Amino acid sequence: MSQDFQTWMKSIQNEVEVALNTYLPSPELAPQALHEAMAYAVLDGGKRVRPLLVFAAGKLFSAPGELLSRAACAVEMIHAYSLVHDDMPCMDDDALRRGKPTVHKKYDEATALLVGDALQAQAFLVLAEASACADHKLPMLQLLAQASGSLGMCGGQAIDLASVGVALSLPELEQMHRLKTGALLRASVLLGAMSGKHLEANEVAALDQYSRAIGLAFQVVDDVLDATADSATLGKTAGKDAADNKPTYVSLLGLEASRQLADQLCRDAHQALTIFGESAQHLRDLADLIVQRKA
Amino acid sequence: MSQDFQTWMKSIQNEVEVALNTYLPSPELAPQALHEAMAYAVLDGGKRVRPLLVFAAGKLFSAPGELLSRAACAVEMIHAYSLVHDDMPCMDDDALRRGKPTVHKKYDEATALLVGDALQAQAFLVLAEASACADHKLPMLQLLAQASGSLGMCGGQAIDLASVGVALSLPELEQMHRLKTGALLRASVLLGAMSGKHLEANEVAALDQYSRAIGLAFQVVDDVLDATADSATLGKTAGKDAADNKPTYVSLLGLEASRQLADQLCRDAHQALTIFGESAQHLRDLADLIVQRKA
Repeated sequence: MSQDFQTWMKSIQNEVEVALNTYLPSPELAPQALHEAMAYAVLDGGKRVRPLLVFAAGKLFSAPGELLSRAACAVEMIHAYSLVHDDMPCMDDDALRRGKPTVHKKYDEATALLVGDALQAQAFLVLAEASACADHKLPMLQLLAQASGSLGMCGGQAIDLASVGVALSLPELEQMHRLKTGALLRASVLLGAMSGKHLEANEVAALDQYSRAIGLAFQVVDDVLDATADSATLGKTAGKDAADNKPTYVSLLGLEASRQLADQLCRDAHQALTIFGESAQHLRDLADLIVQRKA
Repeated sequence: MSQDFQTWMKSIQNEVEVALNTYLPSPELAPQALHEAMAYAVLDGGKRVRPLLVFAAGKLFSAPGELLSRAACAVEMIHAYSLVHDDMPCMDDDALRRGKPTVHKKYDEATALLVGDALQAQAFLVLAEASACADHKLPMLQLLAQASGSLGMCGGQAIDLASVGVALSLPELEQMHRLKTGALLRASVLLGAMSGKHLEANEVAALDQYSRAIGLAFQVVDDVLDATADSATLGKTAGKDAADNKPTYVSLLGLEASRQLADQLCRDAHQALTIFGESAQHLRDLADLIVQRKA
């Protein structure tokens, strides 16, 4: 990973932290307890993979900063809400997230439920209120709604729930992850690019191919880390998938074949970006980062 | 209530039922279990007060049918998702809604959580995909997001949660309801009117005044019914507020003064509509309906 990319990544992560703070409802406004809990759920956490994808894809077409920043915050708010709800006792029942107590542990379940609900609305609001013209924003709002809903992220979680203790085939496992995490990763890439301009069909196709590859790679690596890393490194409970009897790439393919698959998907991601030339360098670097990450 | 209004109401309720069916994800698409549960949460239930407000306000400015229908379905999906989450054990823990088992009773808590999440995304999608131009739809999407989020419905629910067992003053109780139910009722009225045309400031002011009056009236009547009607009539558990030690208009003002307040608010609502003349008749009828309802 180049020094240049590391510097860029840090600067985007800092910029996104400031932007999230700006676009969350002020904790000074009522209801303050809810706003404080929303900030707890969103700020100071995670690698900001989705915002990084938004900004990296934005570089393809010199997208304007404010729209990129709002799109990045919108996807991160959707992601954060999904984690809050996913951690609740009726779902994964997890006590630790990003090295901190989960929202329902820090506050209570009712607050966690409302934090997630309010963050979803806030995501749409942040994007809808960008200064770009309505024609520019509307397809982006549509994409965000599609990626978040029952044919995207929520749908993937429903399939995930239904698959506990069930022997999924590899294509079924891929379909589940394509929705559960892939849809929002794809939306991040496309929203970044769409912030710059209206996309041509071949550009959408290339970005779809890239997104599919990194989305699957992300999950394969998640499964490898869940099976091999410890909770302190991950910032969340390790070994949960096996304990919950959930199908994973590691359980289906084994550890070594899973690692090889991740490497192959990373090469696929690079391949997909050929038409964009040099301007796609940060997207290439992010594919590498996703496969090489240790947490 | 005139025969004319009764006929209109029935026809809108039927039209909305068909439209909701159309705009929900098809239960034939995967994940089918989630889509079936979403339909269970939304279809065949309630008086459709919010859609009726959308259509009645749409008559002020001869709004186009498709946009009205989508706006009506969007607010009803937001409303339905809020009921599903509100009924969950960590919130109101209710087993009965609209005379049927609540979603977490019929399915399970995880499904109820995802049904609510997916319905919220679907609401934004349904409105974003209307055939109207982007300039027309964008302010409507913004309003829907504001009304649903932490400064609207979710914020009201947070204040409601925090108020159990707390001695709220009348202004505090009003502020809570202004957000919890008022924000989405106001959005229904404004979305209907905005479907027709861009609103002038005096039109927004009049509709705001009307919305505030019916929003409060709605809640006052809810409290009266909760204290006086039985569960079978209400289609939900009666007497819950008192049992949960929640502040209500009845507990603060007494039954008779609450009934008088509802009547006064109904007159305020009529008063606010003066500038619209005859075209506002259905909005007047709806104010009467809200105050005179028995469930």
